[in-house]
Amino acid sequence: MDDCIFCKIIAGKIPSYKIYEDENVFAFLDIAEDADGHTLVVPKKHCRSVLDCGETELARTMSAVQKITAHYIERCGFEGANILSFAEPCAGQTVFHLHFHIIPRLTGDGVFEFPKIKKCKHTLEAMRQKLAMY
Amino acid sequence: MDDCIFCKIIAGKIPSYKIYEDENVFAFLDIAEDADGHTLVVPKKHCRSVLDCGETELARTMSAVQKITAHYIERCGFEGANILSFAEPCAGQTVFHLHFHIIPRLTGDGVFEFPKIKKCKHTLEAMRQKLAMY
Repeated sequence: MDDCIFCKIIAGKIPSYKIYEDENVFAFLDIAEDADGHTLVVPKKHCRSVLDCGETELARTMSAVQKITAHYIERCGFEGANILSFAEPCAGQTVFHLHFHIIPRLTGDGVFEFPKIKKCKHTLEAMRQKLAMY
Repeated sequence: MDDCIFCKIIAGKIPSYKIYEDENVFAFLDIAEDADGHTLVVPKKHCRSVLDCGETELARTMSAVQKITAHYIERCGFEGANILSFAEPCAGQTVFHLHFHIIPRLTGDGVFEFPKIKKCKHTLEAMRQKLAMY
């Protein structure tokens, strides 16, 4: 896509701190600089989010996420990772080319915690009835 | 695994608020009740995290994540979603059976925000040199 910043990064038209590349997937450091090694993993074929990504592209992208995460832990001194992807603006998506964040972690680094919130308005059973796919 | 709570849920030995099931994947509501519709998607075949999951199982699990997220948005009134998975205790993993969180979202719900932190100790170029896989 001509106006997609991640497509431009993949094409080399915008420089990036590249971490990994194969035929279908590209990975580079997030310039937010909020956590050491914060990495974005994207399919080369443009899609908006996990919602419209082809099944094969999604599998290839996740396989790269897995490889990169393992590399960080097995060979780069990290001990774990958070993996995140956001779909649509209400969920915090700001660049509309599917990307998975890898946030490499060390014990006690304080980088990322699961939100401690209670925003439920409905019971679990009410939600099951609303959402169940059977 | 005999002592894995998610394996027991999959086997029906512990009740759950089931959302989706196919031959390889099971999904149910997180009992944390921190967000309406907070769902966990797990492969039926036990693995610890994204690190040791087989490529096929990972692809199947992500395909289910995609289907369920689309269902929530297209048919259940949600507008987006956060998708998360944590690997190892330092990253907040507490149940050691791979699971992807789906947190369905609505505009302005205030449920989940990307952490606003600056924990970087190294430059992007230093991290690229440390992490690059080429």
